[in-house]
Amino acid sequence: MAGSSFGTIFKITTWGESHGKALGVIVDGCPAGLALSESDVQAYLDRRKPGTSALTTQRKEDDLVEILSGVFEGKTTGTPISMIVRNTSQISADYSDVASYYRPGHADYTFDQKYGFRDYRGGGRSSGRETIGRVAAGAIASKLLSALGITVKAYTKSIGPIEIDPANYDEALRLTTPTCMPDAIANEKAVAHLAKAREEMDSVGGCMECVVDGLPAGIGDPVFEKLDANLAKAIMSIGAVKAVEIGDGVLVSKKKGSENNDAFLSGTGTGSPAITKATNHAGGILGGISDGSQIVLRAHVKPTPSIYQKQRTVNQSGEEIEIQIKGRHDPIIVPRAVVVMECMTAITILDAMLVGASSKLTTLKDIYRR
Amino acid sequence: MAGSSFGTIFKITTWGESHGKALGVIVDGCPAGLALSESDVQAYLDRRKPGTSALTTQRKEDDLVEILSGVFEGKTTGTPISMIVRNTSQISADYSDVASYYRPGHADYTFDQKYGFRDYRGGGRSSGRETIGRVAAGAIASKLLSALGITVKAYTKSIGPIEIDPANYDEALRLTTPTCMPDAIANEKAVAHLAKAREEMDSVGGCMECVVDGLPAGIGDPVFEKLDANLAKAIMSIGAVKAVEIGDGVLVSKKKGSENNDAFLSGTGTGSPAITKATNHAGGILGGISDGSQIVLRAHVKPTPSIYQKQRTVNQSGEEIEIQIKGRHDPIIVPRAVVVMECMTAITILDAMLVGASSKLTTLKDIYRR
Amino acid sequence: MAGSSFGTIFKITTWGESHGKALGVIVDGCPAGLALSESDVQAYLDRRKPGTSALTTQRKEDDLVEILSGVFEGKTTGTPISMIVRNTSQISADYSDVASYYRPGHADYTFDQKYGFRDYRGGGRSSGRETIGRVAAGAIASKLLSALGITVKAYTKSIGPIEIDPANYDEALRLTTPTCMPDAIANEKAVAHLAKAREEMDSVGGCMECVVDGLPAGIGDPVFEKLDANLAKAIMSIGAVKAVEIGDGVLVSKKKGSENNDAFLSGTGTGSPAITKATNHAGGILGGISDGSQIVLRAHVKPTPSIYQKQRTVNQSGEEIEIQIKGRHDPIIVPRAVVVMECMTAITILDAMLVGASSKLTTLKDIYRR
Amino acid sequence: MAGSSFGTIFKITTWGESHGKALGVIVDGCPAGLALSESDVQAYLDRRKPGTSALTTQRKEDDLVEILSGVFEGKTTGTPISMIVRNTSQISADYSDVASYYRPGHADYTFDQKYGFRDYRGGGRSSGRETIGRVAAGAIASKLLSALGITVKAYTKSIGPIEIDPANYDEALRLTTPTCMPDAIANEKAVAHLAKAREEMDSVGGCMECVVDGLPAGIGDPVFEKLDANLAKAIMSIGAVKAVEIGDGVLVSKKKGSENNDAFLSGTGTGSPAITKATNHAGGILGGISDGSQIVLRAHVKPTPSIYQKQRTVNQSGEEIEIQIKGRHDPIIVPRAVVVMECMTAITILDAMLVGASSKLTTLKDIYRR
Repeated sequence: MAGSSFGTIFKITTWGESHGKALGVIVDGCPAGLALSESDVQAYLDRRKPGTSALTTQRKEDDLVEILSGVFEGKTTGTPISMIVRNTSQISADYSDVASYYRPGHADYTFDQKYGFRDYRGGGRSSGRETIGRVAAGAIASKLLSALGITVKAYTKSIGPIEIDPANYDEALRLTTPTCMPDAIANEKAVAHLAKAREEMDSVGGCMECVVDGLPAGIGDPVFEKLDANLAKAIMSIGAVKAVEIGDGVLVSKKKGSENNDAFLSGTGTGSPAITKATNHAGGILGGISDGSQIVLRAHVKPTPSIYQKQRTVNQSGEEIEIQIKGRHDPIIVPRAVVVMECMTAITILDAMLVGASSKLTTLKDIYRR
Repeated sequence: MAGSSFGTIFKITTWGESHGKALGVIVDGCPAGLALSESDVQAYLDRRKPGTSALTTQRKEDDLVEILSGVFEGKTTGTPISMIVRNTSQISADYSDVASYYRPGHADYTFDQKYGFRDYRGGGRSSGRETIGRVAAGAIASKLLSALGITVKAYTKSIGPIEIDPANYDEALRLTTPTCMPDAIANEKAVAHLAKAREEMDSVGGCMECVVDGLPAGIGDPVFEKLDANLAKAIMSIGAVKAVEIGDGVLVSKKKGSENNDAFLSGTGTGSPAITKATNHAGGILGGISDGSQIVLRAHVKPTPSIYQKQRTVNQSGEEIEIQIKGRHDPIIVPRAVVVMECMTAITILDAMLVGASSKLTTLKDIYRR
Repeated sequence: MAGSSFGTIFKITTWGESHGKALGVIVDGCPAGLALSESDVQAYLDRRKPGTSALTTQRKEDDLVEILSGVFEGKTTGTPISMIVRNTSQISADYSDVASYYRPGHADYTFDQKYGFRDYRGGGRSSGRETIGRVAAGAIASKLLSALGITVKAYTKSIGPIEIDPANYDEALRLTTPTCMPDAIANEKAVAHLAKAREEMDSVGGCMECVVDGLPAGIGDPVFEKLDANLAKAIMSIGAVKAVEIGDGVLVSKKKGSENNDAFLSGTGTGSPAITKATNHAGGILGGISDGSQIVLRAHVKPTPSIYQKQRTVNQSGEEIEIQIKGRHDPIIVPRAVVVMECMTAITILDAMLVGASSKLTTLKDIYRR
Repeated sequence: MAGSSFGTIFKITTWGESHGKALGVIVDGCPAGLALSESDVQAYLDRRKPGTSALTTQRKEDDLVEILSGVFEGKTTGTPISMIVRNTSQISADYSDVASYYRPGHADYTFDQKYGFRDYRGGGRSSGRETIGRVAAGAIASKLLSALGITVKAYTKSIGPIEIDPANYDEALRLTTPTCMPDAIANEKAVAHLAKAREEMDSVGGCMECVVDGLPAGIGDPVFEKLDANLAKAIMSIGAVKAVEIGDGVLVSKKKGSENNDAFLSGTGTGSPAITKATNHAGGILGGISDGSQIVLRAHVKPTPSIYQKQRTVNQSGEEIEIQIKGRHDPIIVPRAVVVMECMTAITILDAMLVGASSKLTTLKDIYRR
C-alpha cells in the first residue's frame, strides 16, 4: 500500500532506506508565503543526529538537508517542498549477517512475510533513519505554527526508572542535555543509568512528553478525525512507540468523574466566550476538538531491540540459532525520538487547522467575498 | 472537514445525532459474496444497547437496524451497504438546560468554538450513540474476518481499582456479565464498586482489552500506515478513550531490551518460515506489520463526565455558574464501549488486509492471470 | 473498493440500488451555518424526476427526500447530513429476464466479472437512480455556492443533430422545457426528433453544457487536482457520459495559438489586479486554476442503451441469443442528466474552494489570529 | 492543498519546478518483486526529451534519472521509489521579463491569485517539465502492467487539420517519427504544417490517442471511481489538455442507440463467460468497469500558448501592455505529451487493478488462506 504519506491538506510523503543513496520527504500543501531556508530545517535535523554524545551511536551522520523545490526567493510558493539528505557514512558490510536471520524486536521477519524479501542493510525502510523526512517536514510545520502563535515542545519525561520532576523543569536544558530531559538532576541520574545498561550490553526504554501552547479552541473534528485520534496515529507510527496517552492518559481508568472533570472558568483567550479550566486532566482536547488549553500527550518507547547480549532467533530456513548483534547502537531510543514526536505533533496540529479552515460558513464568506 | 469516514478500501462513513431522526453508517468497499443478514448486525448492536443492567442508563433504546442497500439474495454485492437505526425513545426536553451552558468533560464548548453553534440535544454528534454506526459496520468486518479464520475479542480488563485475573478468564462470561469482565469474581466486585459510585453520585473509569487471533504475518505497513498506528487512531477516536497501548504498552518505558525482546522460535503457521515467539511483549506487531502471533491492545477510558454532583462551569455568556446534570447516565462507559473497541479493531484489521492484498507482484499475478 | 465517495473536504458518499429499499447520500464536511430545509433539496430532485413528460419513462417515482441528520434548527451543523429517498414504485418482476443475460451497452457483464454476481433488478447500483444521491448533495453545494455569490447552471446543448442557438438563449426555459433546452425553437425540433426515435424503437444521444458564474480567480490546484481535472472526473463519472470538454474543448486541436490564446485586459472583479479577458476559449481555467471568468464545460452523453429493437447478445452460459428489452425507458438520457451535471459541477467547485482556503499564510493568519 | 499526489494504492507524488534545482517523483505502493533499473525509466524519459527534432524546443535537457530508494538487488522492495532528475540547462535570465506580466494562455495570473506570488522562471510548477515525474512513475507502472500481460500505447492522432489514417498504422513509426504519428504520410504532412506555423510565429493544436490491450474484464468501479472517470481526471490533469474522450467520445451525442450499442458475442479470454464484442464504440468500459476489450481514449491538446507574435495582456499593476515572448518554445505540445498520456493511463489502470484486488471474498480467501 501507499503508506508513506501523512496528512490531508498539509501532506508529507517520506522515502528512503537506512543504507540507500538518500532519504527525504515531500511536503505538499504548505501555505504560500512562509519564509523558509535550509537552516530552519537543519536545526531540527541536528537534534536527531547521532554521535553527539555517549548516549547515541558513534556513527557519524552529517545529515545535511537540501531543499530542491517549493521555495522561491526565500518563501514557500505553495507547491511541493522536496527535501533530501544524502546517506554518506553507511557501511553496508556491517549488516551482512543480518540478511540471513530475523533479529528479535525488529521488523526483519514481518517485512519478509509482507513483501517476500527485504533490504536488510541497517533495517532498510524500518530504520530509525526513516524519521529524517518526518523531522524535516516537522521543522516547516513548526515554523508555520510559530507564525500563528503556537509552540510545540517535546522532551524526555522518563528513562527507565528515572523521571523528571516538573518542579525542576528548565526550558534551557530541554534541547541541550544528552537525554533531552529538562531537569539537570534527572538528566545526570539517567546518564549514569544508561552507562550501566551499556556496560551490561543491554538497553533501556523511556517516556517522552509533548505540549502544545497557543492552540485556539475549535481545532479537530468530532468523530474519526478527532485531534487526539490523529495524534495517536502520528505518534504510534514512530518506530518503537508502544503506547500513547492524552492528558491524564492511563490514569483515567482509575479515576472518578468528580476527580477527572475539568471545571470551566471565566478566562481570557481567543474563544468566545473566553474560558480557562480549573484543571487540565483532558490534555486540552474534548470530544476530539481543542478546548484552548495546553495540549498534553505522552509516548512510551521500548528499549532499543539491538542489544549486544546473545539472543535466540530463527534464520530464513526456519532453524533456531543464537545470534550476537554487532555494529553501533544507541542504548536508548528516546533522546533522538523526542524531536520526532515534536515534529509529528506539529504536522498533525497544523493539518487539523488547515482542514478546519472551512468549518463555518461565516469564515468562508470572509475568505472569498472580501 | 469530512471527518466521519474511516478506512481506505473497507471504508465506513457514520452519521447521525443522539436526538436526530436516526443514525447509521455506509460500509463501502466490502468484498462481494459474504452472506449477511440484519440479524448478524443486530447481535452486535444488542451488545452496546443500554438498559440491559443496573450499570447502564435506564433509557430504553431498541436500536433496531435496517439494511437498505448492498445486499442481494442474502449476500453482499460489493456496493455500499447502508444501515439505519431510527431514534425512537429520545426525549429532547430532558436536555433543554444544556443548551445554555458547557458541561465539564463534554464537547459542548469545543463544538461551539468550532462550528459557531451546536445540536445540544443529548450531546448531538458527540453522543455515545454515534458509535451505533461503528458497531453495525464492525459486525460486518467481524463476519468477514471470521470467514478468513480470524477472530477479534474485546472485554473489560479493569473498572476503577478492580482488575480481572487472566487465570480466571472465562470466555463464556465475556459477553454475558454486566461489566463485560470475563472473570466472575472481578465482575462481582466491580458491580459492587459501581453501585457505590452511583450512590455517591459519581462515575468510574476503566480499561478494556482486545485480542486478535488467526491474523497471518505480513499485515500492515511500515511507516505511517503501521497496523498499530491505525489501531491507535481507531481506538482513540472512540469517545472517552485517553490512552492506547499495544502489547506491553506503557510498561515498555520501564523495561530493558533483554526483557522486552521476543525470541523467535521454529513454529507452525502460514508464515514462511513458520515461527512462534517465546513471548509476545510486542503484542503481535513488529515495525507496524503483524508477526503472526496474537494482536493485543488496550484502551483506557475516562469516567462518565455526566455526574449528578454539583459542578462549576460557565454559560454561553461566559458567566461562572453551578450546575447539576439531570437525566439518565451510566456510572461507567466501559461495558458499552467494549463492543465498539472490538468493532473498530475488526474494521482496522480488515482494511489493512484489503490494502495489503497487492503487496507482492506474485500475488497480483495469481489474481489477474489465472 | 470504496468507490462511492467524492470530494476531499466537502465529501459525498452515495448508496443504494435501483430496486433496493432506498437510495441516499451522506454529505460530510458541509460548513456549519447554512440555512437548509428538505424543500431546498426536493426542488433539485424534482428536476431529475421521471414521468414529467413524454420524453421520460412513464414510471412514477415520487422521490421524496428526508433529511435525517446534520441540520438543527434549520441550519447545517457541520456534521454529516444524511438524506434518504425511499424506493416506492419499483416492480422487480419487470426485470426477471435480465438476470440471465447481458444487455448491450449496460454494465451487466462487467459487474458479473468484477463481483461474481450482481443485483440485476433495474441495473442495481449502475442504474440512473444512483444519481439521486448526487443531486441531493448538489442541491446543498449549490445553495452554499449561492451564499458566496456563485451560480451554476446546466442545460441541454444538443439532442441528436439539433443544437440550441446561443442567440435564442432564454433562461426561463432552461428548467421548464421537457428537453432542458433553453431555446424554444430547438426544443420543439428536439421533441419531434425524439418522438420519431421512439416510433423507430430507437434512442438518441445528446450534449449538455454547464456554466459557472461568479467564481473568484485562484480556485483549483496546479497538478493532479486541477479544477478541470476534477470536473472531468466528476462529469465522466455520470453514467453514459463519454466525453468531457472544457472551454473550446475538442476544437482546440484544430486551432492555432494566435486564435486560442485569450488576451488579458484591465477589468473589474475580486482578483488583484482585476482583469477581464478579451475571449474565453480557456473556459475560465488556466493551469488548473480559475481565472475569474466564466467556467464552461460540456459532456457528451450516449443514447439510452435500452432500446426496443431486437439485439444480439450472450447469456450467462456464454451462448449467443437474441433479446428484446421490455419495460419503460427514456428515449434519451440527457434531459434528466442535466441536473446531475449541474450538481456534480457545484460539488467539485465547492470542494476546490474549501481545500483552497489554506493556500496562503496571510489567509490563515486572518482566520486564526482574529 | 496537497494536490501533487495521484492514485490510491499505487500512489505517485511529483515535485519540482522548471528552473528549480531538480524535479522528481515518489512512487509509493508499488508491489514488491518487480525487476527495475534506471534504464527502464530513462527509456520513457527520453521519449519526452526536447531537442530531438526541429519540432521541439532547441533547449538541450539531458534529464537523467537517478533512483534513490525502493529498489534493492535489482527489484522493487514495496517501499517508496524516489526518482530525481537534476535541472542542468535552465537559464533563468531568459525569463526575467515574465515576472512582471501575465502571459496569455499560461497560469501566471491564476498562480498569483491563488498563492499571492509565483516562481516565474519557466512557468515554475506549471511548466511542462512537471511531467518528468509522471513519466518516470509511468515507466514503472507500464513495466508492471507488462508483467501482467497488459500493454499501453499512445500516439499522435492529429496535428491541426492532418489526421492519421488507421489503415496506415505502423507500430514501428509510433516511437520514431518526430510527430509520434504512426503513419508515414500523415507524419510528413504534419512536419510541413508545423514548419509553416513556426514561420508564421504561431503554434498548432493536436489530438492524441491511447489504447490498452490485454486488460481483463472487471477492472474499475461503478460510481465515482469509474475507470473512465479516473482516466478523464488523469488525462485532463496534463497541462494543455482541454477535452477527453472514451471510445466514440463526442460522436455519441449524434448517434442512435441502435448504432452505438456493442453486441456481445461468444468469444475467448479470461472473462467468464468469455465474450467478444461485435464493435467497440464503448472503448472497452461499461458502467465504469472494463469489459475485456481494448480501452480507447483520446485527448485534445491546445496549441502552445507561447507564440512569438505580439500579444495583448496586463502587467502586475493591471495596466494593459503589448508583449512579445522570447525564448525557445515548441510549435506544438502533442508529440512530447504522448508519452505523458501513455504514462498517466498506465498509472490509472494499474491503480484500479490494485484497489480492485479485494472485490470478491473468494479472491481474498485465495490470498490469505493459502
